[in-house]
Amino acid sequence: MKRTVIIHSGGMDSTVLLAHLVAEGREVHALSVDYGQRHRRELVAAAEICAHYKVPHRIADLRGVTSLFGANALTDSQVAVPEGHYEEASMKATVVPNRNMLLIATAAAWAMSLKASSVAYGAHGGDHAIYPDCRPAFADALDKAIRLADWHEVSLERPFVGMDKTAIVKRGVELGVPFALTWSCYVGGDRHCGKCGTCVERKEAFLRAGVADPTPYAG
Amino acid sequence: MKRTVIIHSGGMDSTVLLAHLVAEGREVHALSVDYGQRHRRELVAAAEICAHYKVPHRIADLRGVTSLFGANALTDSQVAVPEGHYEEASMKATVVPNRNMLLIATAAAWAMSLKASSVAYGAHGGDHAIYPDCRPAFADALDKAIRLADWHEVSLERPFVGMDKTAIVKRGVELGVPFALTWSCYVGGDRHCGKCGTCVERKEAFLRAGVADPTPYAG
Repeated sequence: MKRTVIIHSGGMDSTVLLAHLVAEGREVHALSVDYGQRHRRELVAAAEICAHYKVPHRIADLRGVTSLFGANALTDSQVAVPEGHYEEASMKATVVPNRNMLLIATAAAWAMSLKASSVAYGAHGGDHAIYPDCRPAFADALDKAIRLADWHEVSLERPFVGMDKTAIVKRGVELGVPFALTWSCYVGGDRHCGKCGTCVERKEAFLRAGVADPTPYAG
Repeated sequence: MKRTVIIHSGGMDSTVLLAHLVAEGREVHALSVDYGQRHRRELVAAAEICAHYKVPHRIADLRGVTSLFGANALTDSQVAVPEGHYEEASMKATVVPNRNMLLIATAAAWAMSLKASSVAYGAHGGDHAIYPDCRPAFADALDKAIRLADWHEVSLERPFVGMDKTAIVKRGVELGVPFALTWSCYVGGDRHCGKCGTCVERKEAFLRAGVADPTPYAG
C-alpha cells in the first residue's frame, strides 16, 4: 500500500484530495501546520475531517519561525484581510514569506521519518500565479530537492494540478466529501465571513459546480 | 551593500564564514535554529559570537516540528551520541529528518522578509557525503527552488564548498576569529567532551592547520 503524507489545511481542496487518496487505497497521514494563522478555525476543521476519514493527523507548530518574519494579513491581526476578488496588490498582503517551502519541508520531514513514498498537496490549476511559490517551476525544483534530501526517496505530488476549483468540488461530490466540515475563510471568525477572497472563491466554486453550498455565511 | 542571512550554528565553520562575509563588507544577519538539539550550548556560543561581531542574531524555534518526527542522537537524550570517527552506521543516528531543508527554508523566509540577496551556510568540501542533504545536487536543487519562491530573488551560497575544515581554520586565523567562543561538541555537556565525532574533527582541524587548539576538553 502506498503511504502518503498529505498537507491538509482543513479547506476544500486538501479535503477533496484527502478523500481522493483514501479512495485510491493509499495509507494517508495528514499534516496541518500551525503558522500562527489568524483563521485558526481551519485547524479544528482539519482535525474533524481527519477523524471523519479515520486518518492519522498531526499539527506541526511553526509559530516559532513565522512569528519572527514580517507582518502579513494571515498572521497579524493588525493587517486587514483584503475583501473581494484577488488582485495582485491585495494578495501580496496575504503572503507569509516562504510559507509553502516551510510547509512542504515539514511534511517531507514527516514523510522521511514514516518511510512514506510521497508528500501530496492540493495545488490546482486555479492557483493564483501571482504567488511565486504556487508556480509549477517552484514545485518542480522543490520536488527534486526533496528526492535528494534523504536516503529514502520522497516525491512531491500535486494530483489536482490539472483541475480548477470547480472540478475539485465536482470530484468531492462524487466522493461524498462532507464539505460542511471544511473551512476556507481567512478572517478568523467562527462563521465564514462570505466576503474575503477565499470566501468569494468558495461560493463561486459551488455555484459553478452546480452544487448546493452547505456553508452558513455571516454576510 | 550586499545583505546576507547566514545560518550560524555557533560552530567553527559557520563562525569563520560569518567573519569572512563581514570582512567582505557585507551586511550580515545571523540565524540560529533551535531544533531541540541536546547540545544547546551551541546556541549560547552563537549569541556570544554575534555579539562579538556586532551582527544581528535571531534564534528560530523549530522544536514544534522536530519534536514530532522521529528519534535521533541529536535531539533525543535516550539515543547515544556515537564516539570516534564518523562511519556510515553511526552517522545515521545523528540525522534529524530533512534538517538542512528546514534550516535553509527558515533562513530563506527571513532573507525574503529582509530583502536580502542571499542565504549563506558553511557547507564545505569535508562534509560527509553520507548525509544526502550535504551533497551539491541537493543544494543546487534547493537554490533553484528558493530563487523561485518569492518575488524578491534570494540565492543560496556555499562560499566554503571548495575548502576543507583545515583550510577553514587557516582562514579563521587570518581573520582573527575567536575560536574559543565556538562550540562543536554534540554531547551536551558544559565542556567539549573531546570524544564525539565533532570533537575529534575539531581537534584534527587545529592539528592539521598547525594552530594551537584553544578548546578545554573534558577528555
